[in-house]
Amino acid sequence: MDEFELIRRYFAHLGATRADVKLGVGDDAALLRVPEGTDLVAAVDTLVEGRHFPAGADARSVGHRALAVNLSDLAAMGAEPAWATLALTLPSADIAWLEGFARGFGELASAHGVALVGGDTTAGPLTISVQILGHAPRGSALTRAGAKAGDLLAVTGTLGDAGAGLALATGALEMHDFASARELLLRFEYPTPRLEFGIAARGTASAAMDISDGLVGDLPKLAAACGLAAHVDVERLPMSRALHAAADVDQARAWALGGGDDYELLVAVPPEKFGTLAARAMQLNLTLTPIGALRPGNTVTWTLHGAEFTPPVQGFDHFRRASTQITV
Amino acid sequence: MDEFELIRRYFAHLGATRADVKLGVGDDAALLRVPEGTDLVAAVDTLVEGRHFPAGADARSVGHRALAVNLSDLAAMGAEPAWATLALTLPSADIAWLEGFARGFGELASAHGVALVGGDTTAGPLTISVQILGHAPRGSALTRAGAKAGDLLAVTGTLGDAGAGLALATGALEMHDFASARELLLRFEYPTPRLEFGIAARGTASAAMDISDGLVGDLPKLAAACGLAAHVDVERLPMSRALHAAADVDQARAWALGGGDDYELLVAVPPEKFGTLAARAMQLNLTLTPIGALRPGNTVTWTLHGAEFTPPVQGFDHFRRASTQITV
Repeated sequence: MDEFELIRRYFAHLGATRADVKLGVGDDAALLRVPEGTDLVAAVDTLVEGRHFPAGADARSVGHRALAVNLSDLAAMGAEPAWATLALTLPSADIAWLEGFARGFGELASAHGVALVGGDTTAGPLTISVQILGHAPRGSALTRAGAKAGDLLAVTGTLGDAGAGLALATGALEMHDFASARELLLRFEYPTPRLEFGIAARGTASAAMDISDGLVGDLPKLAAACGLAAHVDVERLPMSRALHAAADVDQARAWALGGGDDYELLVAVPPEKFGTLAARAMQLNLTLTPIGALRPGNTVTWTLHGAEFTPPVQGFDHFRRASTQITV
Repeated sequence: MDEFELIRRYFAHLGATRADVKLGVGDDAALLRVPEGTDLVAAVDTLVEGRHFPAGADARSVGHRALAVNLSDLAAMGAEPAWATLALTLPSADIAWLEGFARGFGELASAHGVALVGGDTTAGPLTISVQILGHAPRGSALTRAGAKAGDLLAVTGTLGDAGAGLALATGALEMHDFASARELLLRFEYPTPRLEFGIAARGTASAAMDISDGLVGDLPKLAAACGLAAHVDVERLPMSRALHAAADVDQARAWALGGGDDYELLVAVPPEKFGTLAARAMQLNLTLTPIGALRPGNTVTWTLHGAEFTPPVQGFDHFRRASTQITV
């Protein structure tokens, strides 16, 4: 099977069928109709084998994650996803792998109404770049900037699960509680982009970003974009029962602070609007936990039970990985 | 320097400054304003070191080519480019390389009014994916389909130069005519996307595509998309004086047929409109050479001086490279 046959077979009709796709995979470019009165929202994220997922990881999970990390960026903007392109570099034309990858990618795309509209398949070390395109009503998208001093900081869901899941996937962690282990592993392998919550937060949250590199790495970026200081009460970080089953509280907290890969949303919200936003989260079957606040200044500080606290881990950095980061 | 500093330093303000970029590099996603009454045009292309360019190739050329191959896809649609995102996987944070890459990418982006609006930098084997976004007046974009039997086939510029340029770059070819060698090398290292011609061909050409994999590989795709047979008179293929200086006519023809990387445009055009299109090309200082025609049927045939001809090379295929393809 040649390259073109490969592309046709697995990627010609992946994801949703949309009337606004005038021309999809198979020409030099795709033709898309962006709804009037909207801003186009575009993001790109790459996964590299052995770096963002363990070598030999299940192809279906890789397909899911390649799209999920991009959908999470749109969630952070409060945007509605619509179209994706895929640049797939593969060591060989491995049919079983392609089938699994296409299944993971396609299921998530269909679930969120995303059509794959373009792709490029090349030979080389396994690398997957997805560009996601979506839209939001003009001027309504959330950004990292815009919050005011006094706004609360809050996160969706629970933190640290994916960090523990990655440790399980690489054999760095073993657990006898199989139900909890499975839950943590799924949180790493099949992250859930918080798209509905992002849309619900438009007009209520004052700033938003997704937590992809760990709270310790990501929060300073939001604070800097707002031109404010941030403070977090570490004991407020939402952690799952499964995470507590995996390790003692210090290790659990380390994952919650710096583990990365959770793809929860970090939002700033004026205190008087927090109740509204939390209620919307509840309607989506999602928790929204206040963890701190923004203040005048330019520092990021952490306390644990009232005492100053230094996070034990750094954010995910591809060129200088923190020593506590598990190498995959 | 950490990953985020790298991105900020080299890619925060690459290319043109555009009023329709409401939010560029540095948030979770970019916010772009697509002109009303247009179709969004999106394409993605990846370059892998050792596959699409020789290992150790000049970084400025790599930056230029990574964008040029994508701009060429928009040219084939008759679209006007506007925004790009860049997924860059790098073995290490090599400052000199990044500077060269940013220069090559940035110069070409600025020349065509393209703003870099998003990026992702990851560690791994050198791989560059660019997604290009542009637009065309609604319904006006050129596609590979739509030509009628009897339409002429024509190509811009000259074919085969980049193939010879690649042979020079890899040491597979040596030349004593340094001026010609330089010309051929530049055609490989700094291809020119035919954007102005693509726009000029809207409403006149009946189908179009760019020649990235060689005419022998690409023409069958256009013919299939049109549901027609194609015929080419091989002696009509436009070849440069520099190419003839590089090798005998058989080898020159082999490069013109299958060399790839020329990024000229292949168009179909009704005979009565050919003169108009050729005149527009001339205004752009570009030749447009008729090389054959589309006919009822589903074959692709070639003749040389009236006799049936079998092209000596196949198109570029990343998973099954033709034996005559020079391995880089």
